[in-house]
Amino acid sequence: MKMIQSSKLNSFPKLRSYFDREEYVARVEKVRSAMLAKGIELLLVADPSNIAWVCGYDGYSFYNHQFVAVPLRGDPIWYGRGSDMNGARATVFMDDDCVTGYPEEYVQRDLHPMEHFSREVIMARGWEGLAVGVEMDSFYFTAATLHTMQKLLPTSTWIDATNLVNWQRAVKSKREIEYMRIGGRILEKIYEQIVDEIRPGLRKNELVANIYATAIRGVDTFGGDYPSIVPIVPTGIEAATPHLTWDDSTFQLGAGTFFEVAGVYRRYHCPVSRTVYLGEPPAKFLHAEQAVIEGIEAGLLMAKPGNCCQDIAEAFFASMRKHGIKKGGRVGYPIGMSYPPDWGERTMSLRVGDLTVLESGMSFHFMPGLWFDDWGLEITESILITDDGVECLSHVPRKLFVKS
Amino acid sequence: MKMIQSSKLNSFPKLRSYFDREEYVARVEKVRSAMLAKGIELLLVADPSNIAWVCGYDGYSFYNHQFVAVPLRGDPIWYGRGSDMNGARATVFMDDDCVTGYPEEYVQRDLHPMEHFSREVIMARGWEGLAVGVEMDSFYFTAATLHTMQKLLPTSTWIDATNLVNWQRAVKSKREIEYMRIGGRILEKIYEQIVDEIRPGLRKNELVANIYATAIRGVDTFGGDYPSIVPIVPTGIEAATPHLTWDDSTFQLGAGTFFEVAGVYRRYHCPVSRTVYLGEPPAKFLHAEQAVIEGIEAGLLMAKPGNCCQDIAEAFFASMRKHGIKKGGRVGYPIGMSYPPDWGERTMSLRVGDLTVLESGMSFHFMPGLWFDDWGLEITESILITDDGVECLSHVPRKLFVKS
Repeated sequence: MKMIQSSKLNSFPKLRSYFDREEYVARVEKVRSAMLAKGIELLLVADPSNIAWVCGYDGYSFYNHQFVAVPLRGDPIWYGRGSDMNGARATVFMDDDCVTGYPEEYVQRDLHPMEHFSREVIMARGWEGLAVGVEMDSFYFTAATLHTMQKLLPTSTWIDATNLVNWQRAVKSKREIEYMRIGGRILEKIYEQIVDEIRPGLRKNELVANIYATAIRGVDTFGGDYPSIVPIVPTGIEAATPHLTWDDSTFQLGAGTFFEVAGVYRRYHCPVSRTVYLGEPPAKFLHAEQAVIEGIEAGLLMAKPGNCCQDIAEAFFASMRKHGIKKGGRVGYPIGMSYPPDWGERTMSLRVGDLTVLESGMSFHFMPGLWFDDWGLEITESILITDDGVECLSHVPRKLFVKS
Repeated sequence: MKMIQSSKLNSFPKLRSYFDREEYVARVEKVRSAMLAKGIELLLVADPSNIAWVCGYDGYSFYNHQFVAVPLRGDPIWYGRGSDMNGARATVFMDDDCVTGYPEEYVQRDLHPMEHFSREVIMARGWEGLAVGVEMDSFYFTAATLHTMQKLLPTSTWIDATNLVNWQRAVKSKREIEYMRIGGRILEKIYEQIVDEIRPGLRKNELVANIYATAIRGVDTFGGDYPSIVPIVPTGIEAATPHLTWDDSTFQLGAGTFFEVAGVYRRYHCPVSRTVYLGEPPAKFLHAEQAVIEGIEAGLLMAKPGNCCQDIAEAFFASMRKHGIKKGGRVGYPIGMSYPPDWGERTMSLRVGDLTVLESGMSFHFMPGLWFDDWGLEITESILITDDGVECLSHVPRKLFVKS
């Protein structure tokens, strides 16, 4: 019965489905509870990670405006560029009548897609006058997006829903955890390769070429996916900057390089950083290594349901103070499904003052990067809060790697 | 004298500089002319490609708020996350006193960086009350960014400057063209590999792994950079969708796959698409191949200074009509420097109605993708308008590749 109905409704086959319909329905229900709590009658989701999590949409099309609209009743509506509607039909859990889009004349011209959206979705469905939740501070929700709708929909009210969906993503399902663990296994292969291949004189882009190849080749039958942040591999004084990308210079004897890379499976990320020193590491590297490893161990002991984000950070900072290293700010953020430009979920932070209570199924990049005036060191772990403690999502030896 | 002054002013070394200071100064002057024409006294640039083009900033840090402020006099001001200031000092053309940032408590919390920016940059420099140009419809310029500033700076006026900088990027300098040609050479290697390796039974992620490796390994001593759009490789009915990314399924005999990939050098992109058919291609593929190739040849004849964007599109569409293929919309967009999520410049389009006059030094992805109900074909070229005509930026055989 269901299949006949589907084949009648859907003009394009479902090519990919990484979660059951039941899981998406449960996600939408979680989102609706959060909407009700904020008085939102219609939620407009712009963040591509949130769009994918809510409805399954997968595609590298977020350089044009696209959204998912979640009403209080009925399936969500995917809305994007007309030529991407087949891609939406192929990947979302909803039937084809929930996929709609704007014609080419709204693509990168004077006409804004939200003029079309306001008329063809909001007005056409009688949704003017609703309280609309919008992700005010999401990249991909531009100032012009809001202003265009405000002009055309004067009776609507607008409620800031930044991170509303992100928060629903915090506790991972069994299937999501499975995908992250596969990411972790891919990551282990990446680090085996890095430590094996890095040597003085090797050009950075050559090592990064092989990192990408290993990451996308994947593990067993599981093909790897692209990371939302490209591999970061700064050496020497470059390592005093967290986000410089590679160039075609060579690795040098007598310098440390930190690697910030992720294993990715079906958009689920497992990022981990390690530092490699070529030659005899100076005392400051060994000192920082010891401090960070102790800090991570102390933090992991506090990583369990019932404790809060701050507890992990405080345990880490206590170890740093013991070793005389000044380090503030945050030492981690939640991870899971993600599209560029970020692989963090942008909700909680592992920092002092964040009293969010840890729950089984939450996952974090425990990321205490040390960036000094002219060098840096990163040793990090991706972790999953379990029923009674914590699990590392990949098993890369936790140390400063030294090759001489 | 200059060097002594620099070493006094700058606490962090300039690690990378891909263009002379003179080129950046000329770019800023072009931007200022456009500002004056619009009555803008201070321009706030959010698009990472525009930021990099204006001042040289390079780093994968655009998942947090960052901007370049261009005043009418004096060097631009880089503004971003405090921990990225070293990365800015290392890459921008300006001295260190033009690099400023916000502390960690403004990172992904209730506090918005624009509260800090409004006080510490705008008010601190006496810039309240100015007419501020803002990229209203740029991803990375969120609705919250504007609203936060509007609340704190009630005497400022706000002028839409979407694409103002993008338009200044249209005509490329000699150095930029050099970088794009290197991208084109990298792309030729990528296609040699694709045609060599693709076969029925090969998993897509395995081929994409090798595409990435070749792309980043680069050519001669020129290391490759990451593409702003990941390789798109849809097969069979998937090719009816333009933006589905790869998975770990296998290539099949009796199906076409189009490849949309770019060679990238120092953020300059040269994208080109080709289609590969495994087995004996059906007549519709051969027919479409012939129509597209003739259409591209017709379009290239119109690609010269003095003609306009529309002329290329019309020549292409005429060939399509001759072959009985219905194709509308746009068949290309300008390219150059780019950061995710797009590699297009988002200004002109090769489409009917776009009367922008072509100038020597403009570069486009001439991209007439054909997406039918259950298959697709892409044969495209990246082109440079020269003094008297057009140059293809890479030389991949222009045809439907067939492997049987």
